[in-house]
Amino acid sequence: MTKRKLGPCVTFFPQPTTLVSSVDAQGETDLMTASWVGIVSKTPPTIGLSLNQSRKTYQNIRETGCFVVNMVPASLATEADYCGLKSGRDEDKKLVTGLHFEPAEAVAAPLVTEAPLNVECRLTSEIDLGEYRLLLGEILQIHAVEKAFRSEGGMDALAFDPLVYLGGIREYWDLGQKVAQAYKEGTKLFQTP
Amino acid sequence: MTKRKLGPCVTFFPQPTTLVSSVDAQGETDLMTASWVGIVSKTPPTIGLSLNQSRKTYQNIRETGCFVVNMVPASLATEADYCGLKSGRDEDKKLVTGLHFEPAEAVAAPLVTEAPLNVECRLTSEIDLGEYRLLLGEILQIHAVEKAFRSEGGMDALAFDPLVYLGGIREYWDLGQKVAQAYKEGTKLFQTP
Repeated sequence: MTKRKLGPCVTFFPQPTTLVSSVDAQGETDLMTASWVGIVSKTPPTIGLSLNQSRKTYQNIRETGCFVVNMVPASLATEADYCGLKSGRDEDKKLVTGLHFEPAEAVAAPLVTEAPLNVECRLTSEIDLGEYRLLLGEILQIHAVEKAFRSEGGMDALAFDPLVYLGGIREYWDLGQKVAQAYKEGTKLFQTP
Repeated sequence: MTKRKLGPCVTFFPQPTTLVSSVDAQGETDLMTASWVGIVSKTPPTIGLSLNQSRKTYQNIRETGCFVVNMVPASLATEADYCGLKSGRDEDKKLVTGLHFEPAEAVAAPLVTEAPLNVECRLTSEIDLGEYRLLLGEILQIHAVEKAFRSEGGMDALAFDPLVYLGGIREYWDLGQKVAQAYKEGTKLFQTP
């Protein structure tokens, strides 16, 4: 397979598209688009969120010690992209996007109502990475959209319709087809003794 | 939007599906499936990889200070899932999957030939997270499949055909349609003064 060298860069995908909601010490909320976010531990459940330290969201999280990672559905691509282009210091992103907030259960940062999955996090540590900060947050509660739950058990991916971000290509895509069941598909290669 | 509480857990997606290649001090290679992986900084380009500290891959990375994150295309879902179910201590995963290795440019860990994107990383730090370890690796080189490059510039996402992992739902999906161009779509909401 012929390949081309890109050098040291941040081209990597697929990534999640999320909106991170936060609140400052005065109770003012903000929204920021983030794709550098993912699970880092199960003991306890922990999420890692990396963001530029100049961000209002970073300042908010430092002030109040919490944040919420809200999954972006494909129907909100415009709103999500907008929240990555503007700063909460200059714009009321909630007003412009028409998104709604509701109280979280365990943290002061709000949930985005229109997000099909909300992950409530308590800041536990911070790693200095040049201009960026990797914030680790213990997951205290997750809310998932009711219509995703199948009566026979399990969840329907298309009910979430998650927006996939392709870092480096700078494109948003939706999901296509289910390819395989994880933790099962690979047993086809098990050797019979 | 009615929602159901999941409690503290690790249900979060979309995530990348990757194969992490590593090598131990004796030169023996291994492959591990990983979805808890993503970009954490641009200064310098850095990737975060979280894995259980009982893994052979963890031991290898500690011994030789490097790893390669290989993007899994949808056509290799079976092979990738297999590499998450078996340990390199018990099986020669390269032999069973039929995948091929080739030398990396800047690190001792090999590239997976069949992966459309390979990210060469040098271990720079480690964060203890219960049973897990979050390993940070400086990105030294990235290789991208030649056929993805368009003559007019940019890259074609479908040439990579990345396999998307839905953590919590435990399903692999492929990409559907392009929804929007990032850093552009959101300007539709810019207010004219």
